[in-house]
Amino acid sequence: MKLTCTQENLNFGLNVVSHIASRSTNLPILNNVLLKAEKTELKLITTNLEMGVKLGVRGKIDKEGAFTVQAKLLSDYVNLLPKENINLELEENNLNIKCLNYQTQIKGLEATEFPLLPEIEKKNKITLKVDDLKPALNRVAFCAALDESRPEISGVLFKINEKQLVITATDSYRLAEKKIEVLESKINNGQFIIPLKTIQELQRILFSQQEKNLNIYFNDNQALFEIDNIELISRLIEGQYPDYQQIIPQNYKTKVKIKTSEFLQAVKTASLFCKPGINDVKITLLPSKNEIVVIASNANLGENITNLSVEIEGEENEIVFNYRFLIDGLNNVNQEYLNVEITNSSTPGVFRPVEEEGYLYIIMPIRQ
Amino acid sequence: MKLTCTQENLNFGLNVVSHIASRSTNLPILNNVLLKAEKTELKLITTNLEMGVKLGVRGKIDKEGAFTVQAKLLSDYVNLLPKENINLELEENNLNIKCLNYQTQIKGLEATEFPLLPEIEKKNKITLKVDDLKPALNRVAFCAALDESRPEISGVLFKINEKQLVITATDSYRLAEKKIEVLESKINNGQFIIPLKTIQELQRILFSQQEKNLNIYFNDNQALFEIDNIELISRLIEGQYPDYQQIIPQNYKTKVKIKTSEFLQAVKTASLFCKPGINDVKITLLPSKNEIVVIASNANLGENITNLSVEIEGEENEIVFNYRFLIDGLNNVNQEYLNVEITNSSTPGVFRPVEEEGYLYIIMPIRQ
Repeated sequence: MKLTCTQENLNFGLNVVSHIASRSTNLPILNNVLLKAEKTELKLITTNLEMGVKLGVRGKIDKEGAFTVQAKLLSDYVNLLPKENINLELEENNLNIKCLNYQTQIKGLEATEFPLLPEIEKKNKITLKVDDLKPALNRVAFCAALDESRPEISGVLFKINEKQLVITATDSYRLAEKKIEVLESKINNGQFIIPLKTIQELQRILFSQQEKNLNIYFNDNQALFEIDNIELISRLIEGQYPDYQQIIPQNYKTKVKIKTSEFLQAVKTASLFCKPGINDVKITLLPSKNEIVVIASNANLGENITNLSVEIEGEENEIVFNYRFLIDGLNNVNQEYLNVEITNSSTPGVFRPVEEEGYLYIIMPIRQ
Repeated sequence: MKLTCTQENLNFGLNVVSHIASRSTNLPILNNVLLKAEKTELKLITTNLEMGVKLGVRGKIDKEGAFTVQAKLLSDYVNLLPKENINLELEENNLNIKCLNYQTQIKGLEATEFPLLPEIEKKNKITLKVDDLKPALNRVAFCAALDESRPEISGVLFKINEKQLVITATDSYRLAEKKIEVLESKINNGQFIIPLKTIQELQRILFSQQEKNLNIYFNDNQALFEIDNIELISRLIEGQYPDYQQIIPQNYKTKVKIKTSEFLQAVKTASLFCKPGINDVKITLLPSKNEIVVIASNANLGENITNLSVEIEGEENEIVFNYRFLIDGLNNVNQEYLNVEITNSSTPGVFRPVEEEGYLYIIMPIRQ
């Protein structure tokens, strides 16, 4: 293996792939990045067996070949090099790297020891705008269950038809759903659950991407996300996602239109006075006064009351929420105003940004 | 106690004082801030018994009085309030706070339970520019010993005469010294050791201050830092500071003038290849080639070599340093170029920014 590429390209590629190279002591090869020089590019490949990522770096290949070295070490090192051409050459079990006055030998392991990434037939294709998917993931994924005691909700549900992708996550205490348009889809009715870790990796990869399209392919066991020269492949979560539509209230008794920032501020001040562990904030809805009252109290610390002027219709009502779920939700409303729909103290509250179709956040109340 | 002040002033004051209110379970009163309404101001006072801080907030005092409440809670709460007038009123054992549509009761403890801050006679006075002291502390304090097994070096030495303040810190592996001019001093020859925690608190307080003067007063046991309406008082460390002048080499065999950023870059790349725990980077000085070579190697990872073109005079030489101490020092050189003075492999290396008088950083070598 012998090749030349630019520091910028190699650095970008290593930044993308090196993150999932684990620090496995059982299987040290998983710490490594597979470097594969073929034709006109250097392929960088990492995997943690749950998912894998593959990226092509353009370069001048003088001699084809493959080798593996510690991904983090190579990434940290290349990141420090000047923005010049880098020469990579394999000599016995050392990767020699030269860049201006910097020279380095990195020891590594044979490419043949590196696990194969699963291949996926590029058949069930969906094409989306990155600028649609990225904010949708950011506003939904935080609801997924962090522990895996109920594996089916420890991921994010993708539900697809010809026109729409619906992304949903829940931890059974709250739920977020976002609908986005697809550019191209030949799927009548498909769905799959992506593990949260894969979603987080995808968010990392998408972070610096914009004004591009992204393709998704899937079969029964895997999904592949493709953007430019980057491929992220992941196992899917088996099992049946809960039928959450039935818990979204279809009606309400009280509806409030409220300024998002004022509501957030009131919940934050209340949060300082909640009972620890319970995190309970009481919201009293008073249509006769065009007002809601946000209250928290704690025998040791004291009590906090905030009165907020709102547009309100329907009945007088009262409900108690965990302030953390309120703050999470309010932080994800992109709009100046928010509609809150309340039925009673034991039915989930529904939060919808005013003037935005397709986003929904619901919270289970704390029953008192 | 009953008063009105602005959110901005109270928020600023609580930000300054609340940090040192500890989370003591032995002595819960130390979590609290003492609020003392007197004449035209509300005094905020906190202490952790090692140091204390006092600050006056201007306000309209309707009724004098004093009370204590949890410093962090009050600070977090006031920080969230709108930038309007705040009314504070004591009713039995509750502090009532009102600001527009926000109202809160915070429970607290009697002011009489709060420990007294030591008073210090304002006699031995030194006046400095904040803009001189702030960078000097930032460039010296990081060298102080973090553990207190040798208490005398777990602080920062202040050495004062009529013209100059010399600030020094060392952990016995490296040392930094900075001389700054004093605006006013009636002290012939004084010195004291300030605990590192006090220095860190002072740095926090100075962070947002500029273009101001600062007064320091001290006696045998305490020092007081005064800036505007803020007073930070601290115990001093007893004991004799080591006579460090004798370990600063007065001569050298090899002198190098090097670009600071290039040297830092080379040390950072080498640091990836050091032996863990030893952190050894070898520097070879080659006057015949106008070059220094920075080398690190590790049987498991590989080897890194960087050649740097420099101005160099004197003998061929070689020395090994802990890369962490090199990086710390190089990060604190404010100048494009740096002079490095090396005697031999067992004598401390001396680092001086070119074109800056009064700053010095020395590192003990690793003997091989």
